[in-house]
Amino acid sequence: MSDVTEILTDYSKDVKAVIEDYLSSIDPEDLQKSSVYLTEAGGKMLRPALTLLSSQAVGGNREDALKTAAAFEMIHTFSLIHDDIMDDDDMRRGKPSVHTVWGEPLAILAGDTLFSKAFGLVITSKEDNISADRVAESLAVVADACVKICEGQALDMGFEGNFDVQEEEYMEMIFKKTAALIAGACKAGAIVGGADSEVIDAMYEYGRLIGLAFQIQDDYLDVISDEKDLGKPVGSDIVEGKMTLMVVKALSEANEEDKEKLVKILSDPESPQEDVDIAIDLFNKYGSIEYAHDVALSNVNKAKEILNILPNSSSKDALALLADFVIERKS
Amino acid sequence: MSDVTEILTDYSKDVKAVIEDYLSSIDPEDLQKSSVYLTEAGGKMLRPALTLLSSQAVGGNREDALKTAAAFEMIHTFSLIHDDIMDDDDMRRGKPSVHTVWGEPLAILAGDTLFSKAFGLVITSKEDNISADRVAESLAVVADACVKICEGQALDMGFEGNFDVQEEEYMEMIFKKTAALIAGACKAGAIVGGADSEVIDAMYEYGRLIGLAFQIQDDYLDVISDEKDLGKPVGSDIVEGKMTLMVVKALSEANEEDKEKLVKILSDPESPQEDVDIAIDLFNKYGSIEYAHDVALSNVNKAKEILNILPNSSSKDALALLADFVIERKS
Repeated sequence: MSDVTEILTDYSKDVKAVIEDYLSSIDPEDLQKSSVYLTEAGGKMLRPALTLLSSQAVGGNREDALKTAAAFEMIHTFSLIHDDIMDDDDMRRGKPSVHTVWGEPLAILAGDTLFSKAFGLVITSKEDNISADRVAESLAVVADACVKICEGQALDMGFEGNFDVQEEEYMEMIFKKTAALIAGACKAGAIVGGADSEVIDAMYEYGRLIGLAFQIQDDYLDVISDEKDLGKPVGSDIVEGKMTLMVVKALSEANEEDKEKLVKILSDPESPQEDVDIAIDLFNKYGSIEYAHDVALSNVNKAKEILNILPNSSSKDALALLADFVIERKS
Repeated sequence: MSDVTEILTDYSKDVKAVIEDYLSSIDPEDLQKSSVYLTEAGGKMLRPALTLLSSQAVGGNREDALKTAAAFEMIHTFSLIHDDIMDDDDMRRGKPSVHTVWGEPLAILAGDTLFSKAFGLVITSKEDNISADRVAESLAVVADACVKICEGQALDMGFEGNFDVQEEEYMEMIFKKTAALIAGACKAGAIVGGADSEVIDAMYEYGRLIGLAFQIQDDYLDVISDEKDLGKPVGSDIVEGKMTLMVVKALSEANEEDKEKLVKILSDPESPQEDVDIAIDLFNKYGSIEYAHDVALSNVNKAKEILNILPNSSSKDALALLADFVIERKS
């Protein structure tokens, strides 16, 4: 794990510098500050690291992929800002969320600005020996991921209060909401690194698989962690009635009585801790926590197999480590 | 004027078809419907017409510029959806606004989706004999216009309650908020039409000038129209305390007593009609209505002069007609 932390820290410094520099010209000042705020607050910077490593793993130059990598972090940040408005979340990265500090109108604009700037940044990678064809190809990847993020968030909102969601629908939702951007980050890295189309597609699939595992692990941690590691109360997804693979699995396996009990708890936005514990007991009774972990693990293993298409290199090793990290992290 | 209506109607049919087709694949259904809603509601489609005419005027093919043209309309629509949320406007194009129908969270997403799709659409123009270099160049224009729209909206919000705004600051705000996208639509048309850089820059300048005139005319109509033509009460900008060139001019010319009177009316969100009439009288007293009209007219005349760089053609004539239309329209 410390290897992974080193990798992420190494890349995140460069990426942060590119983003902060590129956003510095925004005017007026409150729009500039609200746009750069979450980047200054930190974050794992997993997506840009994946772009940079994917590019290097196919023989590309680290410097040349930096702008495209930074753009993926900016798209991620844009989606966090807008999601926090939609979900009315007050906190993000240990700080008050953007709309909590600057109000909703400016937070909407800060997200829109990051979005616009991200596309602009990918285009400027033309200055870095990337051909116009490859720039257009990476832009298509970014645009496609952005559409999917919106669709995924809309699907997720549509799941609210719907307790008949099937596993396939759930997987489609998290693919769009979470995995598509991670997959896009890997694919765009391979594109700007100069890979052929077979490798480009393989890197998308690697990213899709670890992206799905990433989201399942997020939901899993909400149930199995302690509050100290998690930085928020255990089981808060249950209180919020959020759809997770564990909920989908438990509801599909439970008898009528248990199903009713679970739906009641998930429907109550004021569920006390004892109800949360009952829900977790039901997850355990139907093996859904273990099931979620197994699905995540299986995706990670498949993702690592895909990496065999790449020649051996330290970047390839780092991509395998990041795949493991996705389901080994504690927060 | 009927010529202009014919031109706009002719182009808008094609553009609408491209947009509706391109948005039809969005899933889930409520996101699809909310994204396409304002396009179905109609609108002048001035921006895509400018892209198509600019492309044709430099020797380009109408079909090849269609996707880029449609993208500019989608960016315009995205900004309307988010602006209506920020300004809490209930109506748009004679229908309830998107957030009024679907709620704020889905309206934010519908805007984001249109935004993402617009970039995707410009990229697909690669299929239409547009070189990757020119596609990347038009995308840079779109991204730049989007950043400016956000900056302009933030500047406009920052003007609220600030009665020391100078004419230069006001012009910078409307350039970013309104004129930059119109200028971008013209520039991108010239790019995909294959123009050289001198003509490309000239088309941006033409668009910038008519874009400024467009916004000034919008504000002017609010004061000089009758309610029937305008589709909303005359002087509603005054009630809302909106910054306009007339306000900026009147405040800079007025004596202390009149200035105080005007600030008081602009600061009162419940101003009765008699106060609105007093404000309009003050505009007249200091010649600010005529001044605004003169500035708009002068911009239009300069814009038409710029068109001399183009060879004679019916598209060039149409661009001159559209410049006049911007300040001759009644709504």
